Amino acid sequence: MEITGFNLIGNRESAKGGNTFFAKNPATDAELTVKIFEATREEIDEAVKSAQNAFNEFHSKTNEERAVFLDTIAECILELGEPLVKRCMEETALPEARITGERMRTMNQLKLFASVVREGSWVDARIDTAIPDRQPVPKSDIRQMQIPLGPVGIFGASNFPLAFSVAGGDTASALAAGCPVIVKAHPLHPGTSELVGKAILLAAKKTNMPEGVFSLVHGFSTEAGMAIVSHPGIKAIGFTGSFKGGKALFDAANRRETPIPVFAEMGSVNPVFILPGALKERNETLAAGLISSVALGVGQFCTNPGLVITQKSEDSKSFLNHLKTRSAEVPSGIMLSEQIKRNYLNGINNLIKSKGVETVNSGAEDESGNKVGTFIFSADYKTFLENKTLTEEVFGPSTLNIATQDKSEMIRVAQALEGHLTATIHGTEADLEEYADLVKVLEQKVGRIIFNGFPTGVEVCHSMVHGGPYPATTAVQSTSVGTAAIRRFSRPVCYQDFPQKVLPAQLKNENPLKIWRMINGDMTKEKI
Amino acid sequence: MEITGFNLIGNRESAKGGNTFFAKNPATDAELTVKIFEATREEIDEAVKSAQNAFNEFHSKTNEERAVFLDTIAECILELGEPLVKRCMEETALPEARITGERMRTMNQLKLFASVVREGSWVDARIDTAIPDRQPVPKSDIRQMQIPLGPVGIFGASNFPLAFSVAGGDTASALAAGCPVIVKAHPLHPGTSELVGKAILLAAKKTNMPEGVFSLVHGFSTEAGMAIVSHPGIKAIGFTGSFKGGKALFDAANRRETPIPVFAEMGSVNPVFILPGALKERNETLAAGLISSVALGVGQFCTNPGLVITQKSEDSKSFLNHLKTRSAEVPSGIMLSEQIKRNYLNGINNLIKSKGVETVNSGAEDESGNKVGTFIFSADYKTFLENKTLTEEVFGPSTLNIATQDKSEMIRVAQALEGHLTATIHGTEADLEEYADLVKVLEQKVGRIIFNGFPTGVEVCHSMVHGGPYPATTAVQSTSVGTAAIRRFSRPVCYQDFPQKVLPAQLKNENPLKIWRMINGDMTKEKI
Repeated sequence: MEITGFNLIGNRESAKGGNTFFAKNPATDAELTVKIFEATREEIDEAVKSAQNAFNEFHSKTNEERAVFLDTIAECILELGEPLVKRCMEETALPEARITGERMRTMNQLKLFASVVREGSWVDARIDTAIPDRQPVPKSDIRQMQIPLGPVGIFGASNFPLAFSVAGGDTASALAAGCPVIVKAHPLHPGTSELVGKAILLAAKKTNMPEGVFSLVHGFSTEAGMAIVSHPGIKAIGFTGSFKGGKALFDAANRRETPIPVFAEMGSVNPVFILPGALKERNETLAAGLISSVALGVGQFCTNPGLVITQKSEDSKSFLNHLKTRSAEVPSGIMLSEQIKRNYLNGINNLIKSKGVETVNSGAEDESGNKVGTFIFSADYKTFLENKTLTEEVFGPSTLNIATQDKSEMIRVAQALEGHLTATIHGTEADLEEYADLVKVLEQKVGRIIFNGFPTGVEVCHSMVHGGPYPATTAVQSTSVGTAAIRRFSRPVCYQDFPQKVLPAQLKNENPLKIWRMINGDMTKEKI
Repeated sequence: MEITGFNLIGNRESAKGGNTFFAKNPATDAELTVKIFEATREEIDEAVKSAQNAFNEFHSKTNEERAVFLDTIAECILELGEPLVKRCMEETALPEARITGERMRTMNQLKLFASVVREGSWVDARIDTAIPDRQPVPKSDIRQMQIPLGPVGIFGASNFPLAFSVAGGDTASALAAGCPVIVKAHPLHPGTSELVGKAILLAAKKTNMPEGVFSLVHGFSTEAGMAIVSHPGIKAIGFTGSFKGGKALFDAANRRETPIPVFAEMGSVNPVFILPGALKERNETLAAGLISSVALGVGQFCTNPGLVITQKSEDSKSFLNHLKTRSAEVPSGIMLSEQIKRNYLNGINNLIKSKGVETVNSGAEDESGNKVGTFIFSADYKTFLENKTLTEEVFGPSTLNIATQDKSEMIRVAQALEGHLTATIHGTEADLEEYADLVKVLEQKVGRIIFNGFPTGVEVCHSMVHGGPYPATTAVQSTSVGTAAIRRFSRPVCYQDFPQKVLPAQLKNENPLKIWRMINGDMTKEKI
């Protein structure tokens, strides 16, 4: 499949605008072939109108038809073959194994959502049957289910060119819910985006989905994004990226004449609490595990552990020494872009200059291309509490160790945290029981609490929560990974005293889809 | 129980402020006894801190303990006896049967949420078990459930002094979720609010709930409300009332350093579509039913039908004549306050002056006290589409008939609608099948679609949706009535690789609470 640099507006390729840009290879900063055309307001308007036109037909498709569409997208992505992997490597400098692994994850996500749609119970069908002779007034027959919100705008992330991008979790869950999708491609991987976008369009064609069910627009500036979020036809936004980007979309969405929900996942510092028992038992192993997690993917994960809280002891000294040794062994890695490298080094320099912060390891000096090394810092409890900037995310391979005196200081660190995606506790089982109050505090701060593991690596399953209180996300009640993510793009509607014939299949007495339903308060798959 | 006019800050009565006001009897505009003290910022801060202190203990209570608390609130409200009914009648001019009926509904709501908490499955427990030998990486054990958001601010409505007020659906669902509640009492019924607030505090004492689980603050100006929504300790807002009030809270919540969700139910015009078959079959009955619904409670319901869409025919002429006759027979009724009456008459005058709008019936002239009569207007399709103000809610007993030429005009009226709480369709079954596309349009506009009924009367049950797209609410994905309302005040959290001992009861292998859980994708009550 050829890369043209055009926008994909419904089934048409379109390049009406005068603003263009080129993707770059982060390893060399060389421009890649093919000029990319930024979408104009007119093109975005066409894409949204096309999505609006497609909406009724798309959400009237059967569960099976929608599931086959999602499965077919997965197949069509795989069929893009080597050219996709090659272009993606050129645009991101990520290694081949990572790209093919991420492609597998992307396909599995699509298939998982296909299975959720096929099974069908996600619509939370609820039926209360009538009681015509109830006193003082008869009770009506009322039936509720989730229906799709309408056309959705999705903003891909820089750091997951496949799994959190054009056909990533946001798109998969929105299509699964029955919403047409307009993707704003991330400007760091426009070629990858176009290829995947074309795979989605091919799948739509193969499975007879209406034109407009998917569009892809390019944009290097913020203009295209703002045109999407402010378009009256857009009913929700999915976003993965920086706090600045997510907050700008959130504010724009709330300024609209009709505000819409914004599901922005904006990253996190992912504190790791190492309890005394664990530190005593295995401080070298912990240091090795932590550095692996910090350095994974050159630290470019929103679940990267940027804060490690310990209690001062001989064990913590030894732990810090191991951190130093291990991090010094990490080879430098290429970041996703010159801008991302610059932001990382700015963050590092802020830490270096911060009063009371000690640099435990300075990343290697080899800075050719966009290579950076791993940095380790340490500070005490007081320094941490006095300097709010120490809890800001430094996107890249670095972490800050906070040394506390005792349990109460450790808990006060937890209490001082803002919202994060994850928190991790390393401990013995005895530690964990003794620190039950730490768990209670962390529950209020994050979406996921990990015991004796590391936060990187987000399992795509029914139980995952990839979310958390602001500023980790703008939507504390949602997750952007896992099957519960589908509920971001639906809302409840109820039908009162509707005849059987006209009710959606999910709510008919016969339960033709054989889904789980709550009937007069009881869960059942039975018919009425 | 004595009315003091004080704020209830945790278990203390408090009157630190200099601003005071009196409740009035709407029937006479006479001031009622007892001076009411507006809460100061300091008192609101104390209430929120008290709620924060109570939070951990409150949400650690067992399901049974929390359920008993809710049941006991219902009992304590009933035990307030005649003085509550009397004060409520004085403050609202609503008839005794309405007050006692609403008290029953309020108690039933509390008991329904108690049953939801007792049953326990609302937390949406999801468990994915570990696969330690999975390739290429092991799969962790991950377990998700809903936990409470934290202290919640609730704003009672003027028009439901019990069921949507201090111990109404918002408070019941927030307490059920495990959130401490701070209620801002509606200034039109402060005495009623205080009595019910004291019943909640008595129930809290009887069932050993921590101080701070509930507070009540008074405010006539908007200051107290703004102090609540902008307090960093408040994690969500529940509101029922005007668009202006709800939007102000929504904007303030989004301006916070940490934005919070606002569940504001802001009213609606509740369009009623009468299809040709039904109009032919029973236009007199329809007119009688509609006028009953319009005039019920002097039109002071957010589900009041303010718009009736018909197609021009001999039947529609006859229908309009019946509307005229029936509405002329409705006696005037007393509105809840002088301000509400003034707003109603302003809305009426706007309609009277609107070009192309005909006044079919003018409400009776008897305007002593705050009495108003029922008004009926009519306009054609073109007038309606050209004048956006015709879709604005006129809070009170009036309705506007839109006469269209045919099906396509009727559907275009539906398409032109903004978000509403409800839409109603009257038709034969044949009508409904022919107008399936009308149903599709209305699904996108409202939270509840009623067939051959009237929108007033909102059943409190598992399937109810009392919500809808903006501007009906600020939270299209939620309902404020029915058991699904509990999910407004919770959020998901997941635990990765946690030892059994430390997991919440809902997520332990043994399933000690015997709740429904999704285990590896399948719904079951079994243990693992």
